[in-house]
Amino acid sequence: MSESKLKGVTGLPDLGTRTDEITIFAGPCSVESEEQFNEVAECVAGLGLHWIRGGAFKPRTNPHSFQGLGEDALKIMQSAGQRYGLKTLTEVMDSAHCEMVHSYVDGLQVGARNFQNFSLLKNIGAVTAESHKLVLFKRGFAGTISEWLAATDYITMEGNDNVVLCERGLRTFETATRFTLDISAVPVIHKQSLLPICVDVSHPAGVRDLVPPLARTAIAAGCDSIMIEVHPDPQHAKSDGAQQLTPSQFEELIHDLREIAAVFGKRLV
Amino acid sequence: MSESKLKGVTGLPDLGTRTDEITIFAGPCSVESEEQFNEVAECVAGLGLHWIRGGAFKPRTNPHSFQGLGEDALKIMQSAGQRYGLKTLTEVMDSAHCEMVHSYVDGLQVGARNFQNFSLLKNIGAVTAESHKLVLFKRGFAGTISEWLAATDYITMEGNDNVVLCERGLRTFETATRFTLDISAVPVIHKQSLLPICVDVSHPAGVRDLVPPLARTAIAAGCDSIMIEVHPDPQHAKSDGAQQLTPSQFEELIHDLREIAAVFGKRLV
Amino acid sequence: MSESKLKGVTGLPDLGTRTDEITIFAGPCSVESEEQFNEVAECVAGLGLHWIRGGAFKPRTNPHSFQGLGEDALKIMQSAGQRYGLKTLTEVMDSAHCEMVHSYVDGLQVGARNFQNFSLLKNIGAVTAESHKLVLFKRGFAGTISEWLAATDYITMEGNDNVVLCERGLRTFETATRFTLDISAVPVIHKQSLLPICVDVSHPAGVRDLVPPLARTAIAAGCDSIMIEVHPDPQHAKSDGAQQLTPSQFEELIHDLREIAAVFGKRLV
Amino acid sequence: MSESKLKGVTGLPDLGTRTDEITIFAGPCSVESEEQFNEVAECVAGLGLHWIRGGAFKPRTNPHSFQGLGEDALKIMQSAGQRYGLKTLTEVMDSAHCEMVHSYVDGLQVGARNFQNFSLLKNIGAVTAESHKLVLFKRGFAGTISEWLAATDYITMEGNDNVVLCERGLRTFETATRFTLDISAVPVIHKQSLLPICVDVSHPAGVRDLVPPLARTAIAAGCDSIMIEVHPDPQHAKSDGAQQLTPSQFEELIHDLREIAAVFGKRLV
Repeated sequence: MSESKLKGVTGLPDLGTRTDEITIFAGPCSVESEEQFNEVAECVAGLGLHWIRGGAFKPRTNPHSFQGLGEDALKIMQSAGQRYGLKTLTEVMDSAHCEMVHSYVDGLQVGARNFQNFSLLKNIGAVTAESHKLVLFKRGFAGTISEWLAATDYITMEGNDNVVLCERGLRTFETATRFTLDISAVPVIHKQSLLPICVDVSHPAGVRDLVPPLARTAIAAGCDSIMIEVHPDPQHAKSDGAQQLTPSQFEELIHDLREIAAVFGKRLV
Repeated sequence: MSESKLKGVTGLPDLGTRTDEITIFAGPCSVESEEQFNEVAECVAGLGLHWIRGGAFKPRTNPHSFQGLGEDALKIMQSAGQRYGLKTLTEVMDSAHCEMVHSYVDGLQVGARNFQNFSLLKNIGAVTAESHKLVLFKRGFAGTISEWLAATDYITMEGNDNVVLCERGLRTFETATRFTLDISAVPVIHKQSLLPICVDVSHPAGVRDLVPPLARTAIAAGCDSIMIEVHPDPQHAKSDGAQQLTPSQFEELIHDLREIAAVFGKRLV
Repeated sequence: MSESKLKGVTGLPDLGTRTDEITIFAGPCSVESEEQFNEVAECVAGLGLHWIRGGAFKPRTNPHSFQGLGEDALKIMQSAGQRYGLKTLTEVMDSAHCEMVHSYVDGLQVGARNFQNFSLLKNIGAVTAESHKLVLFKRGFAGTISEWLAATDYITMEGNDNVVLCERGLRTFETATRFTLDISAVPVIHKQSLLPICVDVSHPAGVRDLVPPLARTAIAAGCDSIMIEVHPDPQHAKSDGAQQLTPSQFEELIHDLREIAAVFGKRLV
Repeated sequence: MSESKLKGVTGLPDLGTRTDEITIFAGPCSVESEEQFNEVAECVAGLGLHWIRGGAFKPRTNPHSFQGLGEDALKIMQSAGQRYGLKTLTEVMDSAHCEMVHSYVDGLQVGARNFQNFSLLKNIGAVTAESHKLVLFKRGFAGTISEWLAATDYITMEGNDNVVLCERGLRTFETATRFTLDISAVPVIHKQSLLPICVDVSHPAGVRDLVPPLARTAIAAGCDSIMIEVHPDPQHAKSDGAQQLTPSQFEELIHDLREIAAVFGKRLV
């Protein structure tokens, strides 16, 4: 099959193609234990994927909810990364943690709630300026694309342009989904920026059964990357259980997504 | 390729498959002349598609904008439908027009602005009760999915359940697109209703170059139908010129979409 | 006290004052019986107010909810209007009812769901062109002020400019209130239009106890009119019971509002 | 006049009264120079008000916009506070600045963009735990009231419950105002929390002439505090010039607001 499936048609710009790889960021919402994290890491590595994600510091609406294992989680991630040959990605919530987090993982995530926490953005830019480690920058749920690109400059002007933008759903009046995935952000970002665009399909879904269709749409929209939450035992997850896939569901989904990606001349890594 | 690409994974419901056909509703925003409409009809028929759409009565924000050709447009549509072997679809805005419109076309559309115009919904249900002609019912741009399904009952309880729901984008704060396409509505509707779901990819795009990627995402989301605006000369269109494709762009897009649909075990009609 | 309280300050336009009267449109959500309506009418008239409102045709989200008493309600309203010396206001949902409704009442309301039902707007404009009866035109819950003023032209260009605009809350993500009252719409309308602006304080409140504070803010914002729902027995109301005041609560509120209005050099009628 | 104007009516809770004082937080968006700040401070003190606000660290969408004078601004504020007998309020954007900012001013502000920057909230709570200095906590422009109260716990659980909540407008589709002021938040907060509620009337207005009507509505809604931006020369302000009042406009407005507040048994401080 030709590669035209992600190209624009004659006279229109090509908003779909960038590279021939789609990077998968999979892993549990929260790192809960070595056993839990390793089980997911084994699954991810077994599928030939390159990255595992997990939450060490959790931005919880309620201060009395589980707040993450902190540095212990980072150690679990680092160790699993080494054992299974995976790169690791985790969220940083506090400028004071940037150095420490940077010393343990391969990629730093800025969450939606810190979309315009400009101090954090600058700190992350500075701490990664030399290493050029990946920064995954999530869109705020009320952030415009224009504000998103402007905020990205707070990171890149510190010296690191290895930034992946991540669409994760907008807050609207609709309650059938947890957030309203703005899938159009993918081609719009391709039009306005040279940065790759990831789609977090778990948070807008909010429930497990919407994850597969949203992952398929992300590929068809031309995304460069997908984030999917995976947990060995979602029923007992300490956060966001309803939207996490089991490893076997994730495996099955990846097989399907690989066939779909192939149609667009892409492969999952 | 197996059909699994649109199925859920083990333990999750199948939100993607319904039939193996994806119906394309293509045509100009407004019917402007016999020549204009026939040019699109020829293109649509030449591609082996079954339906052509066009606006006869236009719901314009400004009363001084072009309001459509009215009954003359219906005659042009009927004549083109007969000449090119196409079914015709047009919007009804007024209960008083239901009978007349019904006598000319094969499908009646309810536009987003009449999402909760319950009198119109009941009248359309009643006028099509015997013919069972197709009713394409667009979601309001601030309508919840729950309200949408409730409003659908106003049509079906009159005796016609040949209703196609049509997602066309929500109104949000984001201005990079004309409306925010709620692509998740496709699997959500598949979960909550037996009715087919169409995606209007032209109105949320607002501009031509976003139409191809949105059409691809609609298929990947599992849609049963797609609406695309096509105009022989978009630059001089009397409404919504910026988002309409030329016939040759449309043709190229349909070729691509056919290959993509095939991956999901579907074909475009 | 001087009138400056609603004026702008030096160098800024005066967005607050228009006339020295604030018209109250009070009455039950739905006309349910002669007895029910008369009880409210007696209360309203006893307070020296001029208008009573009530729903005859109800735009209900669910087709199986109470749809209103229709023409019977109009007869009840007309009779109560004559008995208590009140003008009557009711919503029209269908162009086919315009003439009939016009023959019974003194004011016609366009509801939020028909904000861009342009056929209805034109019909209401036409049917009131000679009588110049009042048309209360509610903003759609996703309608911009710019669209609102444009839609108003559909009424006025038919020959009746006796239109009162009515803000009734926007649909947002916030669920603590039924709708998000856009109180800024009052001064914005005063800036952009010569038409008077009413604030429906019952629908955005959604619950009874928010009605008094919202009514006070409407006056302070400079509104020309307030709509408040009143029911003799809200617990058993056939629609929107939670937000309706009892006659005695309404009476107490009007006394307070009168004192507040006086501060701004206005009086309630 | 009795105090009933801000009370609920019989059978409804009193959502309006809390104390008999309305605290005004006035001052320039950004502290730009000693001269500029002192001019505003003199005006504020001359009116018998107690607080002056000003921005030292500015959260700017664009990293290339003016970012504030930083610690120099804090020194200017401290000095003006001492000279004019005013308490000072400024925004903290970075946990690393908490101690320093705390050492200069009387009140710390959390801006809308840091609504769910939980690390910052905890740090501010901790740094003020002993001093009990005032923390003004602005609602995020897509934050629900429920999330707001939950986030407040991140501050108070560190030991300081001297928190003033501040409504400053939501992000919606409406562009006639900069943000959509959610005036209903005032009575809702009074219903759900014991904390005082401030209304920032400058940011939702976006333009100067909407400030007076919004300030009046804030009082009528029962607010405990109002924030208003004042600049000696708004035309040349380094940020948000269009919405800032001149000192003389501010003075005139305060005179009017005092008369209005008196009606509700309140006085401005």
